[in-house]
Amino acid sequence: MTGATVGPVSEHCQVVTTIDSAEGAEELAQGIVEERLGACVQVVGPIRSVYRWQGEIQVDREWQCVVKTTTARLDALVEYIRTHHDYDVPEIVATPIVGGNPDYLSWLHTETAP
Amino acid sequence: MTGATVGPVSEHCQVVTTIDSAEGAEELAQGIVEERLGACVQVVGPIRSVYRWQGEIQVDREWQCVVKTTTARLDALVEYIRTHHDYDVPEIVATPIVGGNPDYLSWLHTETAP
Amino acid sequence: MTGATVGPVSEHCQVVTTIDSAEGAEELAQGIVEERLGACVQVVGPIRSVYRWQGEIQVDREWQCVVKTTTARLDALVEYIRTHHDYDVPEIVATPIVGGNPDYLSWLHTETAP
Repeated sequence: MTGATVGPVSEHCQVVTTIDSAEGAEELAQGIVEERLGACVQVVGPIRSVYRWQGEIQVDREWQCVVKTTTARLDALVEYIRTHHDYDVPEIVATPIVGGNPDYLSWLHTETAP
Repeated sequence: MTGATVGPVSEHCQVVTTIDSAEGAEELAQGIVEERLGACVQVVGPIRSVYRWQGEIQVDREWQCVVKTTTARLDALVEYIRTHHDYDVPEIVATPIVGGNPDYLSWLHTETAP
Repeated sequence: MTGATVGPVSEHCQVVTTIDSAEGAEELAQGIVEERLGACVQVVGPIRSVYRWQGEIQVDREWQCVVKTTTARLDALVEYIRTHHDYDVPEIVATPIVGGNPDYLSWLHTETAP
Protein backbone atom coordinates (compact mmCIF):
# COMPACT_ATOMS: atom_id res chain seq x y z
CA MET A 1 0.00 0.00 0.00
CA THR A 2 1.62 3.22 -1.11
CA GLY A 3 -0.41 5.75 0.82
CA ALA A 4 0.54 5.89 4.47
CA THR A 5 -3.13 5.64 5.12
CA VAL A 6 -4.14 5.84 8.71
CA GLY A 7 -7.50 4.24 8.00
CA PRO A 8 -9.56 7.06 6.53
CA VAL A 9 -12.75 7.81 8.42
CA SER A 10 -15.00 7.79 5.37
CA GLU A 11 -15.77 6.38 1.92
CA HIS A 12 -14.84 9.57 0.08
CA CYS A 13 -11.85 11.85 0.25
CA GLN A 14 -10.28 14.95 -1.18
CA VAL A 15 -6.68 14.60 -2.37
CA VAL A 16 -4.40 17.57 -3.10
CA THR A 17 -1.16 17.65 -5.04
CA THR A 18 0.74 20.70 -6.25
CA ILE A 19 2.89 21.26 -9.34
CA ASP A 20 4.93 24.11 -10.87
CA SER A 21 2.96 24.84 -14.06
CA ALA A 22 -0.66 25.31 -15.16
CA GLU A 23 -0.03 22.93 -18.07
CA GLY A 24 1.41 20.28 -15.75
CA ALA A 25 -1.59 20.66 -13.44
CA GLU A 26 -4.08 20.27 -16.27
CA GLU A 27 -2.22 17.29 -17.71
CA LEU A 28 -2.33 15.55 -14.30
CA ALA A 29 -6.02 16.47 -13.94
CA GLN A 30 -6.95 15.09 -17.37
CA GLY A 31 -5.04 11.85 -16.72
CA ILE A 32 -6.63 11.33 -13.29
CA VAL A 33 -10.16 11.73 -14.71
CA GLU A 34 -9.27 9.70 -17.83
CA GLU A 35 -8.08 6.80 -15.63
CA ARG A 36 -11.17 7.10 -13.37
CA LEU A 37 -8.96 7.75 -10.34
CA GLY A 38 -10.94 10.88 -9.51
CA ALA A 39 -14.37 12.09 -10.55
CA CYS A 40 -13.34 15.74 -10.68
CA VAL A 41 -10.07 17.65 -10.36
CA GLN A 42 -10.06 21.37 -9.61
CA VAL A 43 -6.96 23.34 -10.62
CA VAL A 44 -6.37 26.34 -8.32
CA GLY A 45 -3.58 28.78 -8.96
CA PRO A 46 -1.10 30.26 -9.30
CA ILE A 47 -0.41 30.05 -5.57
CA ARG A 48 2.84 30.88 -3.72
CA SER A 49 4.44 27.95 -1.87
CA VAL A 50 6.86 28.73 0.96
CA TYR A 51 9.11 25.90 2.23
CA ARG A 52 12.70 25.10 3.26
CA TRP A 53 14.97 23.35 0.76
CA GLN A 54 18.60 22.50 1.54
CA GLY A 55 18.57 24.94 4.47
CA GLU A 56 17.13 27.91 2.54
CA ILE A 57 13.53 29.18 2.57
CA GLN A 58 12.15 29.06 -0.97
CA VAL A 59 9.10 30.69 -2.51
CA ASP A 60 7.76 28.99 -5.66
CA ARG A 61 4.84 29.58 -7.96
CA GLU A 62 2.64 26.43 -8.04
CA TRP A 63 -0.82 25.18 -8.95
CA GLN A 64 -2.99 22.96 -6.71
CA CYS A 65 -4.86 19.96 -8.12
CA VAL A 66 -7.79 19.15 -5.80
CA VAL A 67 -9.14 15.67 -6.57
CA LYS A 68 -12.54 14.40 -5.35
CA THR A 69 -12.58 10.64 -5.21
CA THR A 70 -13.46 7.52 -3.20
CA THR A 71 -11.16 6.15 -0.52
CA ALA A 72 -11.14 2.82 -2.39
CA ARG A 73 -9.21 4.56 -5.21
CA LEU A 74 -6.77 6.44 -2.95
CA ASP A 75 -3.79 4.11 -3.22
CA ALA A 76 -4.07 3.82 -7.01
CA LEU A 77 -4.39 7.62 -7.25
CA VAL A 78 -1.29 8.17 -5.05
CA GLU A 79 0.65 5.71 -7.22
CA TYR A 80 -0.51 7.42 -10.44
CA ILE A 81 0.54 10.87 -9.22
CA ARG A 82 3.92 9.61 -7.96
CA THR A 83 4.54 8.04 -11.37
CA HIS A 84 3.39 10.96 -13.52
CA HIS A 85 4.59 13.92 -11.42
CA ASP A 86 7.97 15.45 -12.25
CA TYR A 87 8.97 16.07 -8.62
CA ASP A 88 10.92 13.41 -6.71
CA VAL A 89 8.68 13.81 -3.65
CA PRO A 90 5.39 15.43 -4.74
CA GLU A 91 2.95 16.64 -2.13
CA ILE A 92 -0.02 14.25 -2.07
CA VAL A 93 -2.30 14.59 0.95
CA ALA A 94 -5.79 13.16 1.52
CA THR A 95 -8.45 14.58 3.83
CA PRO A 96 -11.68 12.69 4.61
CA ILE A 97 -15.05 13.78 3.19
CA VAL A 98 -17.55 13.06 5.99
CA GLY A 99 -20.76 14.44 4.52
CA GLY A 100 -22.35 16.42 1.73
CA ASN A 101 -24.78 16.05 -1.17
CA PRO A 102 -25.65 12.32 -1.32
CA ASP A 103 -26.26 12.50 -5.08
CA TYR A 104 -22.81 14.04 -5.63
CA LEU A 105 -21.14 11.50 -3.34
CA SER A 106 -22.73 8.60 -5.27
CA TRP A 107 -21.63 10.28 -8.54
CA LEU A 108 -18.04 9.99 -7.16
CA HIS A 109 -18.52 6.21 -6.98
CA THR A 110 -20.01 5.95 -10.48
CA GLU A 111 -17.22 8.00 -12.05
CA THR A 112 -14.33 6.20 -10.34
CA ALA A 113 -15.50 2.61 -10.75
CA PRO A 114 -12.51 0.91 -12.42
CA MET B 1 -31.15 13.59 6.58
CA THR B 2 -29.89 14.98 3.32
CA GLY B 3 -26.15 14.81 3.89
CA ALA B 4 -24.81 11.29 3.52
CA THR B 5 -23.08 12.01 6.77
CA VAL B 6 -20.81 9.30 7.95
CA GLY B 7 -20.85 10.60 11.52
CA PRO B 8 -18.44 13.52 11.37
CA VAL B 9 -15.55 13.31 13.79
CA SER B 10 -15.97 16.82 15.17
CA GLU B 11 -18.29 19.70 16.07
CA HIS B 12 -17.10 21.93 13.24
CA CYS B 13 -16.64 21.36 9.55
CA GLN B 14 -15.64 22.98 6.30
CA VAL B 15 -18.06 22.57 3.42
CA VAL B 16 -17.15 23.26 -0.22
CA THR B 17 -19.45 23.77 -3.18
CA THR B 18 -18.53 25.05 -6.63
CA ILE B 19 -20.49 27.13 -9.16
CA ASP B 20 -19.92 28.57 -12.64
CA SER B 21 -19.94 32.33 -11.94
CA ALA B 22 -18.46 34.78 -9.45
CA GLU B 23 -21.90 36.38 -9.03
CA GLY B 24 -23.52 33.01 -8.35
CA ALA B 25 -20.80 32.22 -5.80
CA GLU B 26 -21.29 35.51 -3.97
CA GLU B 27 -25.07 35.17 -4.00
CA LEU B 28 -24.78 31.70 -2.43
CA ALA B 29 -22.23 33.03 0.10
CA GLN B 30 -24.45 35.97 1.13
CA GLY B 31 -27.49 33.70 1.51
CA ILE B 32 -25.59 31.12 3.60
CA VAL B 33 -24.34 33.82 6.02
CA GLU B 34 -27.73 35.59 6.01
CA GLU B 35 -29.47 32.34 7.01
CA ARG B 36 -26.80 31.61 9.67
CA LEU B 37 -25.92 28.32 7.98
CA GLY B 38 -22.25 29.28 7.93
CA ALA B 39 -20.25 31.86 9.85
CA CYS B 40 -17.98 32.69 6.94
CA VAL B 41 -17.86 31.77 3.24
CA GLN B 42 -14.67 32.23 1.22
CA VAL B 43 -15.03 32.58 -2.56
CA VAL B 44 -11.95 31.25 -4.39
CA GLY B 45 -11.63 31.50 -8.15
CA PRO B 46 -11.78 31.33 -11.02
CA ILE B 47 -10.55 27.73 -10.90
CA ARG B 48 -10.54 25.14 -13.74
CA SER B 49 -12.65 22.03 -13.10
CA VAL B 50 -11.84 18.88 -15.08
CA TYR B 51 -14.45 16.08 -15.09
CA ARG B 52 -16.23 13.58 -17.40
CA TRP B 53 -19.72 14.39 -18.60
CA GLN B 54 -21.65 12.11 -20.94
CA GLY B 55 -18.45 10.28 -21.87
CA GLU B 56 -16.40 13.42 -22.69
CA ILE B 57 -13.77 15.11 -20.51
CA GLN B 58 -14.86 18.70 -19.85
CA VAL B 59 -12.94 21.68 -18.51
CA ASP B 60 -15.09 24.43 -16.94
CA ARG B 61 -14.37 27.72 -15.24
CA GLU B 62 -15.81 27.65 -11.70
CA TRP B 63 -15.62 29.35 -8.32
CA GLN B 64 -15.31 27.54 -4.96
CA CYS B 65 -17.43 28.56 -1.96
CA VAL B 66 -15.65 27.38 1.22
CA VAL B 67 -18.07 27.49 4.17
CA LYS B 68 -16.93 27.30 7.83
CA THR B 69 -19.72 26.05 10.03
CA THR B 70 -20.80 23.66 12.80
CA THR B 71 -21.68 20.04 12.11
CA ALA B 72 -25.07 20.67 13.69
CA ARG B 73 -25.92 22.94 10.74
CA LEU B 74 -24.53 20.63 8.03
CA ASP B 75 -27.80 19.04 6.91
CA ALA B 76 -29.63 22.38 6.73
CA LEU B 77 -26.67 23.88 4.79
CA VAL B 78 -26.66 20.96 2.30
CA GLU B 79 -30.42 21.38 1.81
CA TYR B 80 -30.04 25.16 1.29
CA ILE B 81 -27.33 24.74 -1.33
CA ARG B 82 -29.25 21.99 -3.18
CA THR B 83 -32.29 24.26 -3.28
CA HIS B 84 -30.51 27.47 -4.32
CA HIS B 85 -27.83 26.10 -6.66
CA ASP B 86 -28.57 26.01 -10.38
CA TYR B 87 -26.87 22.65 -11.01
CA ASP B 88 -28.95 19.44 -10.80
CA VAL B 89 -26.21 17.72 -8.76
CA PRO B 90 -23.98 20.39 -7.18
CA GLU B 91 -20.74 19.39 -5.50
CA ILE B 92 -21.22 19.71 -1.74
CA VAL B 93 -18.52 18.03 0.37
CA ALA B 94 -17.79 18.39 4.10
CA THR B 95 -14.43 17.79 5.78
CA PRO B 96 -14.07 17.74 9.58
CA ILE B 97 -12.36 20.57 11.49
CA VAL B 98 -10.49 18.84 14.34
CA GLY B 99 -8.65 21.74 15.93
CA GLY B 100 -7.71 25.38 15.69
CA ASN B 101 -8.21 28.71 17.43
CA PRO B 102 -10.75 28.05 20.23
CA ASP B 103 -12.06 31.62 20.06
CA TYR B 104 -12.70 31.28 16.32
CA LEU B 105 -14.34 27.87 16.76
CA SER B 106 -16.72 29.28 19.38
CA TRP B 107 -17.43 32.24 17.05
CA LEU B 108 -18.64 29.59 14.52
CA HIS B 109 -21.25 28.48 17.07
CA THR B 110 -22.37 32.02 17.91
CA GLU B 111 -22.77 32.97 14.26
CA THR B 112 -24.69 29.85 13.19
CA ALA B 113 -27.09 29.57 16.12
CA PRO B 114 -30.53 29.39 14.41
CA MET C 1 -3.53 23.38 25.08
CA THR C 2 -4.64 26.27 22.97
CA GLY C 3 -6.19 24.46 20.05
CA ALA C 4 -9.65 23.16 20.86
CA THR C 5 -8.41 19.89 19.52
CA VAL C 6 -10.97 17.18 19.41
CA GLY C 7 -8.31 14.50 19.21
CA PRO C 8 -7.23 14.58 15.59
CA VAL C 9 -7.61 11.31 13.75
CA SER C 10 -4.13 11.34 12.27
CA GLU C 11 -0.45 12.29 12.65
CA HIS C 12 -0.58 15.00 10.01
CA CYS C 13 -2.92 17.91 9.42
CA GLN C 14 -3.63 20.86 7.20
CA VAL C 15 -4.16 24.18 8.97
CA VAL C 16 -5.72 27.23 7.31
CA THR C 17 -5.64 30.84 8.43
CA THR C 18 -6.65 33.90 6.45
CA ILE C 19 -5.34 37.47 6.48
CA ASP C 20 -6.09 40.76 4.70
CA SER C 21 -2.88 41.31 2.68
CA ALA C 22 -0.54 39.31 0.45
CA GLU C 23 2.44 40.72 2.40
CA GLY C 24 0.91 39.70 5.72
CA ALA C 25 0.23 36.20 4.35
CA GLU C 26 3.81 35.79 3.14
CA GLU C 27 5.24 37.12 6.39
CA LEU C 28 3.19 34.57 8.36
CA ALA C 29 4.21 31.82 5.92
CA GLN C 30 7.93 32.62 6.19
CA GLY C 31 7.75 32.75 10.01
CA ILE C 32 5.88 29.43 10.25
CA VAL C 33 8.48 27.65 8.07
CA GLU C 34 11.36 29.47 9.79
CA GLU C 35 10.13 28.26 13.20
CA ARG C 36 9.57 24.70 11.84
CA LEU C 37 5.89 24.86 12.75
CA GLY C 38 4.94 23.84 9.24
CA ALA C 39 6.90 22.17 6.43
CA CYS C 40 5.15 24.13 3.69
CA VAL C 41 2.71 27.04 3.56
CA GLN C 42 0.70 27.76 0.41
CA VAL C 43 -0.61 31.30 -0.05
CA VAL C 44 -3.85 31.36 -2.06
CA GLY C 45 -5.52 34.60 -3.05
CA PRO C 46 -6.93 37.13 -3.24
CA ILE C 47 -10.18 35.48 -2.17
CA ARG C 48 -13.47 37.17 -1.14
CA SER C 49 -14.59 36.46 2.44
CA VAL C 50 -18.27 36.94 3.27
CA TYR C 51 -19.25 37.06 6.98
CA ARG C 52 -21.41 38.99 9.48
CA TRP C 53 -19.76 41.59 11.69
CA GLN C 54 -21.72 43.66 14.20
CA GLY C 55 -24.98 42.74 12.50
CA GLU C 56 -23.87 43.64 8.95
CA ILE C 57 -22.77 41.26 6.17
CA GLN C 58 -19.23 42.18 5.13
CA VAL C 59 -17.20 41.20 2.07
CA ASP C 60 -13.41 41.46 2.48
CA ARG C 61 -10.45 40.71 0.28
CA GLU C 62 -8.21 38.12 2.02
CA TRP C 63 -5.44 35.61 1.39
CA GLN C 64 -5.45 32.00 2.68
CA CYS C 65 -2.33 30.46 4.25
CA VAL C 66 -2.59 26.66 3.96
CA VAL C 67 -0.05 25.00 6.29
CA LYS C 68 0.97 21.32 6.02
CA THR C 69 2.28 20.05 9.32
CA THR C 70 2.21 17.31 11.96
CA THR C 71 -0.48 17.12 14.62
CA ALA C 72 2.27 17.19 17.26
CA ARG C 73 3.04 20.79 16.20
CA LEU C 74 -0.60 21.94 15.99
CA ASP C 75 -0.85 23.68 19.36
CA ALA C 76 2.44 25.53 18.94
CA LEU C 77 1.37 26.57 15.41
CA VAL C 78 -2.02 27.86 16.68
CA GLU C 79 -0.23 29.84 19.40
CA TYR C 80 2.27 31.29 16.90
CA ILE C 81 -0.48 32.44 14.53
CA ARG C 82 -2.56 33.95 17.37
CA THR C 83 0.51 35.88 18.54
CA HIS C 84 1.67 37.10 15.12
CA HIS C 85 -1.67 37.73 13.38
CA ASP C 86 -3.10 41.24 13.47
CA TYR C 87 -6.72 40.13 13.92
CA ASP C 88 -8.16 39.75 17.44
CA VAL C 89 -9.77 36.41 16.52
CA PRO C 90 -8.00 35.00 13.42
CA GLU C 91 -9.48 32.02 11.61
CA ILE C 92 -7.29 29.00 12.39
CA VAL C 93 -8.83 25.63 11.48
CA ALA C 94 -7.18 22.20 11.23
CA THR C 95 -8.37 19.29 9.09
CA PRO C 96 -6.85 15.81 9.39
CA ILE C 97 -4.57 14.36 6.70
CA VAL C 98 -5.44 10.65 6.59
CA GLY C 99 -3.31 9.43 3.69
CA GLY C 100 -1.07 10.40 0.81
CA ASN C 101 2.51 10.09 -0.40
CA PRO C 102 4.42 8.38 2.43
CA ASP C 103 7.68 10.10 1.44
CA TYR C 104 5.98 13.51 1.61
CA LEU C 105 4.31 12.70 4.92
CA SER C 106 7.67 11.72 6.45
CA TRP C 107 9.18 14.93 5.01
CA LEU C 108 6.57 16.80 7.09
CA HIS C 109 8.06 15.19 10.22
CA THR C 110 11.66 15.95 9.24
CA GLU C 111 10.90 19.59 8.48
CA THR C 112 8.89 20.28 11.66
CA ALA C 113 11.10 18.55 14.20
CA PRO C 114 11.75 21.27 16.81
